[in-house]
Order: sequence, then structure tokens, then C-alpha cells
Amino acid sequence: MKQEIRLDVNHMMADFLGMQYGIDRGDVDAMSAHLKRAHAVVEANRGKGMHGWMDLPYNQEKIVEKINRVAADIRAKFDTFVVLGIGGSALGPAAVQQALNHLHYNDLPKEKRNGPRLYIEDNIDPERMAALLDVIDVSTTCFNVISKSGGTAETMSQYLIVLDALKKAVGDDYHSHIIATTSESRGHLIKLAQKENYETFFIPEGVGGRFSELCPVGLLAAAVCGIDIQGLLDGAKAMDERCKTDEVWDNPALLDAALMYIAMQDMGMNMSVMMPYADSLKLMADWYAQLWAESLGKNVTKKGMACNVGSTPIKTLGVTDQHSQLQLYTEGPYDKVITFLKVESFRAQTDIPHGCEEIPDVAFLGGKSHNQLIEAERMGTEYALYKSGRMSQTITLPCVNAYTVGQLLYFFELVTAYTGELLDIDTFNQPGVEESKVAAFAMLGRDTEKHNAKRDEMKTRPERKKDYIL
Amino acid sequence: MKQEIRLDVNHMMADFLGMQYGIDRGDVDAMSAHLKRAHAVVEANRGKGMHGWMDLPYNQEKIVEKINRVAADIRAKFDTFVVLGIGGSALGPAAVQQALNHLHYNDLPKEKRNGPRLYIEDNIDPERMAALLDVIDVSTTCFNVISKSGGTAETMSQYLIVLDALKKAVGDDYHSHIIATTSESRGHLIKLAQKENYETFFIPEGVGGRFSELCPVGLLAAAVCGIDIQGLLDGAKAMDERCKTDEVWDNPALLDAALMYIAMQDMGMNMSVMMPYADSLKLMADWYAQLWAESLGKNVTKKGMACNVGSTPIKTLGVTDQHSQLQLYTEGPYDKVITFLKVESFRAQTDIPHGCEEIPDVAFLGGKSHNQLIEAERMGTEYALYKSGRMSQTITLPCVNAYTVGQLLYFFELVTAYTGELLDIDTFNQPGVEESKVAAFAMLGRDTEKHNAKRDEMKTRPERKKDYIL
Repeated sequence: MKQEIRLDVNHMMADFLGMQYGIDRGDVDAMSAHLKRAHAVVEANRGKGMHGWMDLPYNQEKIVEKINRVAADIRAKFDTFVVLGIGGSALGPAAVQQALNHLHYNDLPKEKRNGPRLYIEDNIDPERMAALLDVIDVSTTCFNVISKSGGTAETMSQYLIVLDALKKAVGDDYHSHIIATTSESRGHLIKLAQKENYETFFIPEGVGGRFSELCPVGLLAAAVCGIDIQGLLDGAKAMDERCKTDEVWDNPALLDAALMYIAMQDMGMNMSVMMPYADSLKLMADWYAQLWAESLGKNVTKKGMACNVGSTPIKTLGVTDQHSQLQLYTEGPYDKVITFLKVESFRAQTDIPHGCEEIPDVAFLGGKSHNQLIEAERMGTEYALYKSGRMSQTITLPCVNAYTVGQLLYFFELVTAYTGELLDIDTFNQPGVEESKVAAFAMLGRDTEKHNAKRDEMKTRPERKKDYIL
Repeated sequence: MKQEIRLDVNHMMADFLGMQYGIDRGDVDAMSAHLKRAHAVVEANRGKGMHGWMDLPYNQEKIVEKINRVAADIRAKFDTFVVLGIGGSALGPAAVQQALNHLHYNDLPKEKRNGPRLYIEDNIDPERMAALLDVIDVSTTCFNVISKSGGTAETMSQYLIVLDALKKAVGDDYHSHIIATTSESRGHLIKLAQKENYETFFIPEGVGGRFSELCPVGLLAAAVCGIDIQGLLDGAKAMDERCKTDEVWDNPALLDAALMYIAMQDMGMNMSVMMPYADSLKLMADWYAQLWAESLGKNVTKKGMACNVGSTPIKTLGVTDQHSQLQLYTEGPYDKVITFLKVESFRAQTDIPHGCEEIPDVAFLGGKSHNQLIEAERMGTEYALYKSGRMSQTITLPCVNAYTVGQLLYFFELVTAYTGELLDIDTFNQPGVEESKVAAFAMLGRDTEKHNAKRDEMKTRPERKKDYIL
């Protein structure tokens, strides 16, 4: 029972779109050496430096056991599970929950859920924290604080708020309501967690935030909600095995990296649109958006040459966004590649009853199903894009389950890693994020040499002109 | 008590960013005649053709009265209100609900809500319809079917499913569970509604889907959830009044259109990033995404010249997406304009308790608030973008209420209308959407001349190559 996801790139190619709009197969073959080198570098780094994510499908047997044990305990003891995290600590857990559990999971009565209600808090909007506290009972809630360094201002300030609320609600028992997911060896959260005797899970040093879904960052929340986390890892492993070859026409992630690279660098496609045709996969687009943007948006090559590379990920949802974005995609500038996520077999069947005989376009649908309609609309969109000379590709999931989702996550991680190598950049750093953090703390009056210097520097910005404020 | 939203474009301008990266004030002044012409065309068309949206702040006194009356009735009789609609019929209602009601509205107990639970169903994923029916009781649910023509396949097939479920649950009383919002004079839904004796609201002929939030399409759901719909219209009217001048430096929407036009056409900025720093405004970005994309993404000018214009809207959320997209925005290609939505005064205060003394970056936050932190982070992001030569602008809402949200909605509608005129395109049509619809129905076997021809045409597409499927 192999349930392999498939990549279909026909609608990317010149064979389909013509030489003006598509990618010539010869251009892919011509970069064969470049591709083999990129593949070799990624493989050679497996498990080293920031390539720890490549080990995750293989080295977590004991961790999975502990996660499942702790998750069962949480399910038994708590009504609500709240993730405090931002970026990779939030987007992965949200995407997997959306994919693999009921689409109105939190609205279900307790006995129909596989675990406690789940909230993922990835912002510091003051109204949002107040709203959360309105709808949960902290005395029956477990909080998972996720920060590798323990220095994430958003997450740690949420932790302080929650800690305060817990102490007021349950007194000394607050210890048993908090789980820390953090670095084992460095940073401050681990020390704090040990002092407070919190249950703790570790983020491997070589696993960056946006590559962390398949480590305890993502696996704990998934297991708490009853998701088969071993299935996720098995899926990732299966994809990893498929991608061990450096033959581009046999390695789906390498082929995709090659096409995305050509589209981006040679054809001016500075956007990558992720368009799942399934509500369950909607948040995969959000998770992908961080992975792709933060990994590839860089201003210097590994050799130190200035550049400004990367393409911008766009989150959409089929069929909904046909009514929002398709007009632009078919008639606007030639500047994007569309990736469809297609589901072959949905987990529910919705039949359309007969009726509306006075409206032929509607009556025609009677006796058909939404299952048929959604796929027909995806094919219609693929065709409309084709006809207007736009590139698209389709990733098909035979069905949405832990095994196929694991493949999908790992596929995009590999595509990103290969594409970063092709661009000759550091895929795994994010130096551009620091500037805004320091500036924000400077604005709040933090008194260190670095922040004081930043405050002085910010004063050199021109005065705002009143004419420019309307 | 004037609560005017403000547009600050300092960080767009060469005065700030330098001539290499910013827009020269002289370039705006130089297009003065072009701007006055665009303004004049929009004004001259007020209320005519597809410019009916410009009348909405002025001509709905009786409609508002009826909406509020029906809404009160719905609040008294039903536990759940479901919008069946797609595109503009869904994005506006969702954005306004998110902005003006509790952030976990549906999770609140009944007595703390201003109305029934609200679900907005804008997709045909079969799992989603099944999931909805799992969590609602149709016998206490009111369904609002929104389709101007009555021919929207997604919405009308949902209607058939819901109708079937209602008949099974409440028998002949199904009539009182359905409200139709549609065209008064054409299309089939109005006939159906009259035959079935449904309560009905009308979409004016001159109001297109993406400009329909301030007509009954959006106002009914808002009123049902206890939102001050007259306040929305008052806000829209206030913005309309501010934009009656054709002096670019006095008309915020015209100034914004000028800058977006220059950025798009002269400086290669093919993306418009909407970045609210408030969870309440998150879905405004979704609503804006349709408005901007579908209005401006066109392949022909009014004079019939071929073109491929439009910029791609990007939905983001501050501070969350600082941890996802900011790396790309500051170091990637120079291809986007960022629009911040800033809230001056939130409706809740979240104080950060003291603690974590062993983590200086966190301990420093003790005694401050999330209100301060979120704005400091916005300013930090603005500064980081400035320092890397990226254009941004900020729209400030003194607070989020019906009046300021009304201004914001109407502001973006005007900016879009002006920009469409500057581009010399038809802002209000969407010819590119038809192709995919016909192709989808052709795939489903619809037997009309048009669909049969499309099916034949689709057969001329090249065969998929097996090599291209991995």
C-alpha cells in the first residue's frame, strides 16, 4: 500500500507551453552538473551544521516514544493545549493540525475530538491574548512554550503572562501546566525549565525554526491531538529515500528545484504561488511561505558576492481564490509559477442533490459531487493558465494522511535546500531579521551599547514631512 | 470626536529613501494632469455603470433599517448564521467580523456573543461541508445564500446541499431558514427566492462582487453579529468626502494611487504587501487581495491595446510574519511595496509581568505591555525596510471600530478605482475568470455548444509526458 505523492511538471515545460513561455527540457539537462553538485553538497552535509533536519526521519525513535507518552498524559489531564511560539514553532503545528484533524476540530464536543482543544498563539496583539483568556480555562490548560534560544521576545512575553495567570489559578501546580521545547545545550529557557521542573523537549542544534516541524516542535502538538507522528516521519523518510539519487529526472525535489531556479533566475518569475485545492492543506501554504521566503531571500552569496535573490511565496486556496486571484494570474504580468496541491481521494463525500431546474448551470450539477466539482475546477484553472501561457505544476496526494503529509513537508524542505545550493546562498541563516529586532528594542528604551547605538543611528533618519501624512 | 484614519507615505519617498530607492515628489507633481483626469473620470461615473459602490454610503437609509430589523429577528431565532458565498460575498463579511467582533467570537458562550455563531463557507471542499454539518444544528441555523446572478456554481451547489439538509431537519419550515442576497432584476436566484418565499436582499446592479461589502452582501452578516453597520457607512462617507478634491496632496486615496502606480509601472514593484499589525485586521488583507488583484490584473487597456498590468497583493500579518517574510523583504529582490496597518489604541491592554531575570532580553520586557511591544516591532520593521532601501507606507487607525473600518474599506476601493484609471483599464470587469469556469464544466461533461467546443479545444493540448511526472 504505497501512497506516494507525485509531482507533475508538464505544464511548466516548453513541450506544453511553447518555447516562449515554458522551460526547455534541454535547459534542465544542460544544468545537470550544477544540479549534481547541489545535490552532492546537500547530501554531504546531511546531519552536519544546520542540516540536522535530514536526520529527523531516522533518529527519533526514543523521542517519539516519549512524545506519545507525554501526549497521552496531556490528553487525559487537560481540556486545552496552547502552543506559544512564532514562525516555525507555530506554522508547522498549525499546518499539520489543519491537514490531519477535523476542519472544525475545536468546535467539536470533547468526546468527538482526538485530544484537547488546540490554540496556536503566534502574535502579540494585545486583543488576541485577552480574547484567548476569555475562551480558555487556564486551570485545565497545558501551555507548550517553544523557543530554541529562550530569547524570543514574543513567545517569552506570552510565557510571562501565562505564568502569571496560572499562578493565580492553580498556585504551585503551575509547573505541571507548562512544557518547554527548547535547545538542550544553550540558551536560557532550558535553565529556567530545569529550575522550574517543567517537562522538556529538545530542539536539535542543527534544526532551524523553519525546518523544525518534524522534531518535537511540531510532533508534540500533533501527538497531543491524536495525530500519527510516526506516520509523518515514515512519510518524510520515504521522500528522503526517493531523493537520494542525483539524477534530476528521477528525483522529484531536485527536478522541482531545477525548474523553480530556471523560472526565477532566467525567466523573471519572482513569485511562487502555492494553491492547495483542499481546505485541509490551506495552512501548508503558510508553512511553505516561511520556508521558501526566509531560506532563499538573501543578499549575499556563499562566496561573499552581493546579490538580491529569492522569490516571494504567495498563499492561496483553490477554488476560493479563483474568485479572487485568477483574473490577475491569467491576464497580469508573467511573473509567477503556480503550484497546485491536488487531493485524489478526500476523506468525505459531498453529493449535490438535484434542484434549481430553472438555472441550467446549477441544475447540471445535481447528481454530481463536490469531490468531482473541486477537481474539475482545478483542471479548469490549470487549463486557463496554460492557455494564457502561465507555468503551473501539480503535486498530487493520493489522500491526506500522516504519511503523505510527511512526504510533502520533507519534499518542500529538500526543494528549498537544493534551490539554495543552486543560488549559492546560505539557506539556513536569517541575518536580515536582526535589524528590526534591535531597532524595536531600541525604541522601547533598552539600555545596552548596541541598542543605544541603534537609537542614535535611527535619529539620523530624515524628519517625517507633514506634507506626506494625509 | 473625529477618528480619521491617516496615510503616512514618508517611507515611500526619495526624501527618505534617496533617489535610487524612493519616489521623487517631483514625479508625483509631474503626473498632476494624469491624476486629475483619473479623479475626474471616477467622479463623473459616480453611481453609473459599475460605479454603484460610490452611492452606497448615501442611498441605503431604508435598507439599513430593514437589515437591522431582519438581523434582530435572526438573533432572536437562530443559534448559527452561515454565509454561503465566494469571493466578494465571503471576504468582506469575514474581514468585517474579524475586525469588529471578539477574536474568538464563535468560541464564546452564547450570552457573551452579540449574535449567533457565524460561519462563512467560501469553498467546495467536500470535507469542509461535512465538517460544517458536524458542528452546526441546521434546525437552528439561518443560511444566507449570496450570488448576484444565481449562477455561481460553488454557492448554488452549497445551497442545494443545505436545502436538502434543512428539508430533512425542519420540513416545510425550511423557507424561514434561508435568506437570498441577489440581483433584484436579473438572474435566477431572485425568481427562486420569490417562488420559495425567502427573505430577500438586493445587490445593486452597479455593485460588483469585490466592491460589495458595504451593500447588503456584507451588511447583513455584520448586523446579525451586532456590528454597527451605519457606523461602517458613515466611515465610508467620511472617506468619500475627504477624497472629493482632485489635489493629490489633499486626497489620501489619490496620493496612494499615484505612488502605487509609479512604484508598479516605473520602478518594477510588482507586489503590494498588506501588513496589518493587529489580528483584528488580518482578514482585511484577504479582502484587499481580491479587490486589488481582480480589479487591476488586466491584459487590455480601455483603448484596446494589449498589456499585462497589475501588481500581486500579498497577505501578511505583523508581527508574526517578521518571523516568516522579513528576511526576504529586506534582502531579496527590490520588487514590493509594504503597506502597514497600524492601530493606535487597541481595545485591550496586555501587560507583561516581570520575570525571567536570567534572560536579559526578556526581563527587560517586564512592566511593559504587548501594546507597546507590537508598535515597537512595527517601527523596527519599518526602520529595517528603510535601511535596506525598501518602500513602505503606514495607514493608522486611531482605533478599530465601525467608523474607521468603513473609512479603510472605502479608501482601498477608491485607491483601486483611481489606479485602474491611471492604468487606463476596466477596473470593474473580470473576463479572465470565465475560461476556467467553462473548462471546468466541460470536464464535467456539460452538453452545450460552448462546453462541447471547449472540450474539443482542450483535446488539442499536448499529451502529458510520463517523464514529467515523478
